[in-house]
Amino acid sequence: MDLTEDILGSEEIFKGKIFDLVIKKVRLPNGATAKREMIEHNGAVGMVPITDDGKLLLVRQYRLAVGRELLEIPAGRLKPGEEPRNCAERELQEEIGYIAGRLEHMITVCVAPGYSSELIHIYLARELTPSRLNPDEDEFIAVEKISVSEALSKVDAGEIADSKTLIALMLLARRHPEIIGG
Amino acid sequence: MDLTEDILGSEEIFKGKIFDLVIKKVRLPNGATAKREMIEHNGAVGMVPITDDGKLLLVRQYRLAVGRELLEIPAGRLKPGEEPRNCAERELQEEIGYIAGRLEHMITVCVAPGYSSELIHIYLARELTPSRLNPDEDEFIAVEKISVSEALSKVDAGEIADSKTLIALMLLARRHPEIIGG
Repeated sequence: MDLTEDILGSEEIFKGKIFDLVIKKVRLPNGATAKREMIEHNGAVGMVPITDDGKLLLVRQYRLAVGRELLEIPAGRLKPGEEPRNCAERELQEEIGYIAGRLEHMITVCVAPGYSSELIHIYLARELTPSRLNPDEDEFIAVEKISVSEALSKVDAGEIADSKTLIALMLLARRHPEIIGG
Repeated sequence: MDLTEDILGSEEIFKGKIFDLVIKKVRLPNGATAKREMIEHNGAVGMVPITDDGKLLLVRQYRLAVGRELLEIPAGRLKPGEEPRNCAERELQEEIGYIAGRLEHMITVCVAPGYSSELIHIYLARELTPSRLNPDEDEFIAVEKISVSEALSKVDAGEIADSKTLIALMLLARRHPEIIGG
C-alpha cells in the first residue's frame, strides 16, 4: 500500500525565530484532501560529551514549554545551511565550553514527526579539551558532571524526561557498554 | 542558581486542530526580558503492544513533516480533559484494533521541551484481545507484527528514527529483558 501524501499547497501562518508554522493541503492515499498543521524547523544537534575520566557532561535548564527544569544533553539548533557536525562542534563550545577531539554520529531522530520537521542529529563527543564558554544571551544553563551509570539510573528511575537525552543515553549503553563503567 | 523564567504575558498567534502557537514574554533569571515561541499541545500517548506470543505490533505511516514513512509504536493525541490511560485504551483500539488486559505506565516524555509543551505518556500493553479497528478518517496506517529482538536490531542499526519509538523500545529492553526472547 502506498501511504504517501502529496502536497497540493502550502500556506505560511507564522515565520519565527525558532520555527515557522505552515498549513499544508495534501492529497491522501484514498484521493481525498486534508489540511496538516506543520512546524518547519531547521534541525538541531545533541552531544553526548564524555570526559577522559569517563564522566558525562549534562546541562540543567528551565524549560518554559513544560514549566520545569530538565537535565539534558547539550544541544542546539542548526543555523541555516550549517552542517550538523559543524553545529555540534560550535554548540559544544558555546554551551559547555569544550572542544571534542573525536565526534562520532550516533543517530538522527525525528523528534515529533506528527507535526514537526525537526531532526536531531546526536553525536558522541570524546577527547574533550576545555575551551571558552560563549552562551546565547537568553540561555541560562548549569553544567553537571555525573557518571554514565548514574545517568542511566536516572533513566531507569524515570528522572530524565527529555526525549533526545533518553535516546542518547540508552543508545550509548547499548553501543558502548565499555563507557558505562567510568 | 534559580533558572526559572517568569511569564509576563502571552499572545496567541494561531489556534489549530493539533496545537496552538503562542508567544510568551518572560523575565529571565538575570532580570532581562525575552520572547519565546511556544507550541501548546494537549499531550499524547504511545503504546508498546506485546502479543501473547511475545511479538510487537508497530505501525507504518507516511509522515508529511519529515517526508517519509516511519515505523512507530501506535500513538495518539489526548482529547481535552482525557486521562492518558483512557486515551491509551481508546487509541489502541482505534489504531490497531486491540483491547489490552494489562496496561502499565512506562514513562512520560517531554518530546521537544525547547518549544513544545507536548508530553507523551508511554504504556506497555499486554494480554491483548482483538477488537474493532476505528481509524481517524485522515490516517492511513499499516500494522506490522515483528519480534522484539528484530525491533531492537532496527534500533541498533539506526532504522527506527521516531523519538517515542526509540525510547519505548530501548526502555522495554532495559526493564523487561524477559520479553525480548519472544
